[in-house]
Amino acid sequence: MENCIFCKIVKGELPAQKVYESEKVLAFKDINPKAPVHILVIPKKHYDSIIDINDDEMDIISHIHVAINKIAKDMGVDKTGFRIVNNCGEDACQEVKHVHYHILGGKKLRA
Amino acid sequence: MENCIFCKIVKGELPAQKVYESEKVLAFKDINPKAPVHILVIPKKHYDSIIDINDDEMDIISHIHVAINKIAKDMGVDKTGFRIVNNCGEDACQEVKHVHYHILGGKKLRA
Repeated sequence: MENCIFCKIVKGELPAQKVYESEKVLAFKDINPKAPVHILVIPKKHYDSIIDINDDEMDIISHIHVAINKIAKDMGVDKTGFRIVNNCGEDACQEVKHVHYHILGGKKLRA
Repeated sequence: MENCIFCKIVKGELPAQKVYESEKVLAFKDINPKAPVHILVIPKKHYDSIIDINDDEMDIISHIHVAINKIAKDMGVDKTGFRIVNNCGEDACQEVKHVHYHILGGKKLRA
């Protein structure tokens, strides 16, 4: 996707503070963190939103969660706890239209 | 897990308003909804938290997301948007210690 900022990060055309990378998944620090730990985990392949991922490609979400668990351990929030959030579409205030999971932690999050 | 309320729902020992069921996944309405649409999606197999799922069993999370997309369409929030949340551990205020994904939608959610 030509104008997608996350695709540009994947291609190295925009900078990011990467914390994890595999063949299919990339993770980097949110530039506007809402918590001491705030990481975005994305599939390298572009999908606008989770609702656009067909069942037969949904294994990418398992790869993303393997990354999430590894990052949580690396960041030391595996013991204290963390929240995983995916916003899909208008009502959820999805900002960047490239599937991304937020990892939030490092403080007590509101219920 | 003997005293896990979600395991009891899986086994039919506690009631729930089920909205989806497959071999490995069950989804039902949250009894204390935070939004017009508030569904919990769980693996039938017990894991305390996402951090307890080993990489080689992480395909369950893809099954859960296949369910999430189907439920979002069934509930009519695929077009309006929805949020997916997984709380892991203390800092995220995880209440029931059986992995569960919240689907929230049907209204504009706070950013």
